[in-house]
Amino acid sequence: MTDAEQTYDVIVLGAGSTGENVADIAVRGGLTAVLVESELVGGECSYWACMPSKTLLRGSEAIAAARAVRGAAEAVTGEQDVAATLARRDDFTSHWDDAGQVSWVDGAGIALVRGHGRLAGEKRVVVAQPDGTELVLVARHAVAVCTGSRAAVPPVDGLADIQPWTPREATSAKEAPGRLLVLGGGYVGCEMATAWQQLGASVTLLQHGERVLPDLEPAAGDAVAASLRALGVDLRLGTRVDSARREGGEVVLGCGDEEVRGDEVLVATGRTANSDAIGLETVGLEPGGYLEVDETLQVAGVPWLYGVGDVNGRALLTHMGKYQARQAGHAIVTRARGEQVDLGDWSPSVATADRRATPSVVFTDPQVAAVGLTAAQAEEQGLPHRVVEYAIGGVAGAGVYADGYTGTAIAVVDTDREVLLGVTFIGPGVAELLHSATIAVVGEVPISRLWHAVPSYPTISEVWLRLLETWRG
Amino acid sequence: MTDAEQTYDVIVLGAGSTGENVADIAVRGGLTAVLVESELVGGECSYWACMPSKTLLRGSEAIAAARAVRGAAEAVTGEQDVAATLARRDDFTSHWDDAGQVSWVDGAGIALVRGHGRLAGEKRVVVAQPDGTELVLVARHAVAVCTGSRAAVPPVDGLADIQPWTPREATSAKEAPGRLLVLGGGYVGCEMATAWQQLGASVTLLQHGERVLPDLEPAAGDAVAASLRALGVDLRLGTRVDSARREGGEVVLGCGDEEVRGDEVLVATGRTANSDAIGLETVGLEPGGYLEVDETLQVAGVPWLYGVGDVNGRALLTHMGKYQARQAGHAIVTRARGEQVDLGDWSPSVATADRRATPSVVFTDPQVAAVGLTAAQAEEQGLPHRVVEYAIGGVAGAGVYADGYTGTAIAVVDTDREVLLGVTFIGPGVAELLHSATIAVVGEVPISRLWHAVPSYPTISEVWLRLLETWRG
Repeated sequence: MTDAEQTYDVIVLGAGSTGENVADIAVRGGLTAVLVESELVGGECSYWACMPSKTLLRGSEAIAAARAVRGAAEAVTGEQDVAATLARRDDFTSHWDDAGQVSWVDGAGIALVRGHGRLAGEKRVVVAQPDGTELVLVARHAVAVCTGSRAAVPPVDGLADIQPWTPREATSAKEAPGRLLVLGGGYVGCEMATAWQQLGASVTLLQHGERVLPDLEPAAGDAVAASLRALGVDLRLGTRVDSARREGGEVVLGCGDEEVRGDEVLVATGRTANSDAIGLETVGLEPGGYLEVDETLQVAGVPWLYGVGDVNGRALLTHMGKYQARQAGHAIVTRARGEQVDLGDWSPSVATADRRATPSVVFTDPQVAAVGLTAAQAEEQGLPHRVVEYAIGGVAGAGVYADGYTGTAIAVVDTDREVLLGVTFIGPGVAELLHSATIAVVGEVPISRLWHAVPSYPTISEVWLRLLETWRG
Repeated sequence: MTDAEQTYDVIVLGAGSTGENVADIAVRGGLTAVLVESELVGGECSYWACMPSKTLLRGSEAIAAARAVRGAAEAVTGEQDVAATLARRDDFTSHWDDAGQVSWVDGAGIALVRGHGRLAGEKRVVVAQPDGTELVLVARHAVAVCTGSRAAVPPVDGLADIQPWTPREATSAKEAPGRLLVLGGGYVGCEMATAWQQLGASVTLLQHGERVLPDLEPAAGDAVAASLRALGVDLRLGTRVDSARREGGEVVLGCGDEEVRGDEVLVATGRTANSDAIGLETVGLEPGGYLEVDETLQVAGVPWLYGVGDVNGRALLTHMGKYQARQAGHAIVTRARGEQVDLGDWSPSVATADRRATPSVVFTDPQVAAVGLTAAQAEEQGLPHRVVEYAIGGVAGAGVYADGYTGTAIAVVDTDREVLLGVTFIGPGVAELLHSATIAVVGEVPISRLWHAVPSYPTISEVWLRLLETWRG
């Protein structure tokens, strides 16, 4: 039995940054919107992903940067205060309290309902509220599913039973584990191995494949693997884990004939969509798995339903979820007005960048900042291209930044159109270089015009000139 | 009497980075080229400007960055090793030895003549060589004047007589002066005041106007003034210096009724073109002053003569000199082939960025990174525009970078074309953000497309999204 019914123009399931942005755009477009959230408003990124992981890494990065400059290195005579770093992390997650986010939601004119929401037929959502009552929400125009994703525990014998750490526990741990085993060498595994090794843990990273960061340019994985080892991480590539158990307080992983022991194990082998318990079956869709959506993030065959952010599997990154939210929000508002949505590439209602220009930064040491296509992806897509590489250490600004600077810039150039398909920067302090590449890729700025974009001397960005000179030959 | 005569396609007067690049492009285009240099090959930037000034600043910057992160700050228990910083600076200037540059010139297939070169009529240069002999050089196609600029000593009574420091002495000093007086609050004055104050000097900065960095957005000068004061610099704005003298080892500057005393005085009030002793009168031009050139850097009325880099006064920055060198080099090669030069904006032979997209970074704390037009310049040029501002401290990535991050981003948007006319970033660690703005301005990427250029979370670059949101309102 339901206790109440409320009607809004737009219902948003999930109040992470993606959901917040869909609702915000809807309200800015003159619609009413309600957010439904069963956990903390603000979502994964604020509490258990980007924010805490980057604060865990930043202290070590700043210390390493000072140690890399002769003259400054001499000032770094002490050690990082791990307790202070953890306390700083706690502040950045607002101590896992969402009052600030809730106040933003209020200020934005968005309604908020706490509880677990499930679809219940066309444009209807039933929320199981914390007090045990049910609330029925009815959408005039659209329901946006922004429920995100969660860590997927791989089907390793015994693993699910020993309560492994997921990225949530890894980013919110109150102290460094003594020995941390990390399963998976994607960006989460590499970042968490880097962070906790530097904060005092002995980390073993087990990666199934022969390379970490397998989706990025091979040079990125090679550089990060070397740095993990230099930090003291026991990196085991090509290692398959067959079994997991606890013995006393100890975690024991079986890898073929060998056993690896630690105090905790972090599972960072992938994500799964939060789409299994949201009533998709009531609207004719299969629960579980990523929602299939079009370029406006509209669910295939269900025109009033949108799948935005991680839940559609297009680009599992906070900033891309927010981007999709802006685009889907625009599409929802446009359609609610009875207007036609522009389906062309780069229109305000389509998420073209998902395919063409998704940027990401891996905050390891070195950092890996990449946007657009890798050489392998350009190859796969059959695009005519040439790869241009330059060792960033040869740039004066990089030498000034750090003694013995080592890094690589890789540009994938479309040889027909002479525009950039993708760019990867690998090296310390390259995170802020990335947006230059993102604008070049998104803007489809021709190489001939990029020659007029002069990097300021002496910055690391001068690598742009070197890439152009290398391209020219 | 002349001892010898040699003929080249292109003669380049001055082997700084600008001259080197003109010669390099000429040789790459199949021409022969000779560089004439009376000082060190590599020029001002390598030995007495960018490279040493930035190495003097980098140590303090890296230490400040670590101190700004709770947890990391605790590791910085010592002080900068000033001797080590100065030794590092010496390494970056190759100990004022140009062997490395000479070897690059050789490898590039460029001839090099040491000595002072002067024009001696059409396409002729006479070089007074160090051994006292003269060499006559004849150009088949072009002579490029790349003699740069030098510090201008303002007409203050007595100043020229007391051997003030110029930027050369300020960047190459073997130890920190006890009390350093700095005349001029442009970027050189601000950078050198920041550097030497942090390296142990007591700096007094005297600025004629009411603001430092007067050519940049007012917020930049205000932020840098506040930071200079916070560092302990005695900053005196609106101060006119009337006289200068030495008393014993002391420098005494008269400022109205007041006297200011120090151990050295750095004159950083502007530059003057090195065009007074290069024989311009032999080709019908007035010696002294900036060479008047067109968009291809060709001197007005003398088609075989080019003025490239500081000497033309268009944009007195190393990277812009090199840019002009590439453009002028292209024009020289094209014309030598008897082909027509494309005079359109952004063509490979014209230096459009000089007017539209000159980037610069002031390496103070906070850094100021700017490209294109300021609001005042847009106003002056009568361009329809709107200014969009955002406090960078509100960006998550900035908060992670430094506790209490303070900074400002300012975008000047052309309201007719909806493209960026200029962007300024003020804040710690913003130097590498600049190239994103440079590409956006040069590429004339419309605001509507920039929405698809998603900044990676959490980086300082997320300020781009905030600027767009502020623009949207």
